[in-house]
Amino acid sequence: MFEQLGLIGCGLMGGSFALALKKAGLVKRVVGYSKSPSTTERARQMGVIDVEAPSALLAVSGADLVLVAVPVSATEATFKAIRHLVGKDVLIMDVGSTKREVIDAARRVLRDQVGVFVPAHPIAGKELAGVDHADPDLYSGRQVILTPIERTEPIQLEKAHRVWTALGCHVKQMTPEAHDAAYAAVSHLPHLIAFAMMNAVTGQQQGAEFLTLAGPGFRDFTRIAASDPAVWRDILMSNREELLAQSKQFQRSLHAFETALNAGNPDALEALIDRASEARANWRMSAIKPQG
Amino acid sequence: MFEQLGLIGCGLMGGSFALALKKAGLVKRVVGYSKSPSTTERARQMGVIDVEAPSALLAVSGADLVLVAVPVSATEATFKAIRHLVGKDVLIMDVGSTKREVIDAARRVLRDQVGVFVPAHPIAGKELAGVDHADPDLYSGRQVILTPIERTEPIQLEKAHRVWTALGCHVKQMTPEAHDAAYAAVSHLPHLIAFAMMNAVTGQQQGAEFLTLAGPGFRDFTRIAASDPAVWRDILMSNREELLAQSKQFQRSLHAFETALNAGNPDALEALIDRASEARANWRMSAIKPQG
Repeated sequence: MFEQLGLIGCGLMGGSFALALKKAGLVKRVVGYSKSPSTTERARQMGVIDVEAPSALLAVSGADLVLVAVPVSATEATFKAIRHLVGKDVLIMDVGSTKREVIDAARRVLRDQVGVFVPAHPIAGKELAGVDHADPDLYSGRQVILTPIERTEPIQLEKAHRVWTALGCHVKQMTPEAHDAAYAAVSHLPHLIAFAMMNAVTGQQQGAEFLTLAGPGFRDFTRIAASDPAVWRDILMSNREELLAQSKQFQRSLHAFETALNAGNPDALEALIDRASEARANWRMSAIKPQG
Repeated sequence: MFEQLGLIGCGLMGGSFALALKKAGLVKRVVGYSKSPSTTERARQMGVIDVEAPSALLAVSGADLVLVAVPVSATEATFKAIRHLVGKDVLIMDVGSTKREVIDAARRVLRDQVGVFVPAHPIAGKELAGVDHADPDLYSGRQVILTPIERTEPIQLEKAHRVWTALGCHVKQMTPEAHDAAYAAVSHLPHLIAFAMMNAVTGQQQGAEFLTLAGPGFRDFTRIAASDPAVWRDILMSNREELLAQSKQFQRSLHAFETALNAGNPDALEALIDRASEARANWRMSAIKPQG
C-alpha cells in the first residue's frame, strides 16, 4: 500500500495507472501534474487524481511512488524538474515504449539516486490518447517489461514487481538493449508500416475514394496508425537504429514477395504466404486475461 | 425467393452465403459441391447445404441461383464444368476479391451466356477459413461491390442487387478496373505487407522470442496475415500489376519516414505521423451495422 502516488503526465497511460491503483486499493492519494493545466483539471474532475499539483516537483513532494508517464523525449526534462525531491525510499517508474534513451537520461540527471528508478514498459495501450480514455483495466492481464540496470536497488525492483502484479500484469525482466531490439520488431516496425501505408493511400489522387471501399481487414491493420503523433515520434526516433534495421529486414521480405509476383510464380508466392499464415495462426498473445 | 441455390465451394464465403440465404428465408433448397468430399459432407452435416452434389455440374442442375465461391484461379475450371447447364434464367455470381481475371474467364467460357454472370465481391471475411467458420451474419451490414460488364443482363443485375440487399448488405457498383485498382490499395497491399512483416520477424534468429513479447497492436495489425494461403496466392497473383504499383507507392512513403529517422529530424517525422494519424482517426468503415 502506498501513501501517495505522484503522477507526472495524466494522459491515457498515467491516468489508467492511477485508476488501476485506486481500484486495487493500493494508494491513499494521487497528486497529479500535466504540462497542460486543462488536462490536470480534467483528471481531477474525473477522479483520476485527487489533487492538482502546479508543477512536476510538487507532484513528487510527499510521494512514495512516482510514475513518469510523458512522451519519451520529455523524460529527461521531467527528471530534472523533480530530482531535488527524489528521496531514497521513493519508487520511480516510467511507462516508455523504449528504454535505453530513458535510462541514459536517468543516469545523467538522477546520478547517485538512479537506483530508485525502475524502467517499466507495460504492453498496453489504445489508439485513443488522453485522460478521457483512461481505463482502470487497461493494464489488467497484460505483460509489463521491467529493464533494471546494475545500479537499480533490489528493494525498488521488488516493489515494482509487486505493484504491477497486483494490477493483474504478468511481469517480465529484460535488459534495456534486448527490450529495444525486440520492440523494434514487434511494435515500432508495425507502427512505422501502418503510418506509411496510410500516407501511401491518402497521397494518391483517388485515395479518398479508395478509403470508402475499405473493410474490416483494413480497419484492424491500420488501427495503430491512429496513435498519438507526439508519443510515436519520440518512440520511433529514440529507437531509430534498431527500427531502421528492422525496416531493412522487412523490405527484404517484401522484395521476396515482389519477386514471386513479378515472376508470375504462384508456387513461390504460396510458399511465402504459407509461412506467414502458419506463424500468425500459431501465435498467441502472452496475456493472463482471455483475449477478445 | 429462389427455388434452389447451387453452391460451388462450401468454404467460409460460400457456406456463409448459404446460411444467410436460409436465415433470410430466400431459398428452398441448397445443393452444394466442394472439391474435397469431406468439406461437402461437413457442410451437409452442419445444415449449410441440404444435398451433396457429386460434381459442380450436378450442383447447378435445377438451380435458379448459383454461387461460385472458389479461389480465383479455380473459377475458369468451374465455369467449364458447369457451362452446359447454364440456362438463360439462372443468376450466377462469384465472391472473388479480384474481378478482371474472373470476368475474362467468364467471357472465354460462358460466351453467349456471359450475361447471366454478375461479378460480386462482398467486403467481408475472416482469417479463419473453412466451412466450420461459416456464419449467417458474415455479410450483414457489409458492402458488396458488383462489377457488371456491358453484356450483363439488366434483369440478372437487378436480381443480384436484391439478393445482397436482402442479406443486409450495402450494394455498390463499379467497373472491374476501378474495383481492382481500389482493392489493390486497401486490401491486397495490407495483406501483402502483413505477410511480409510476419516473415521478416520469424526469419530472425530471435524471432520466436520477439513474438512472445508482442501485444495488442501487433495482434490486430497481423490478423490478416493468418488468411488462407491458397485464396490469397490467387488474389495477389491475379491483381499483381495493380498490387506491385501500390507496393511501390508504399515503399516511397516508407522511405520518407526512413529519411526523417536517418536525419534525426523529429519535426519531419511528426508531420508524417500526423498526416497518417489524422487520416486514420477520421476514417469510418462504410457499413450499415454498428462497428465492433
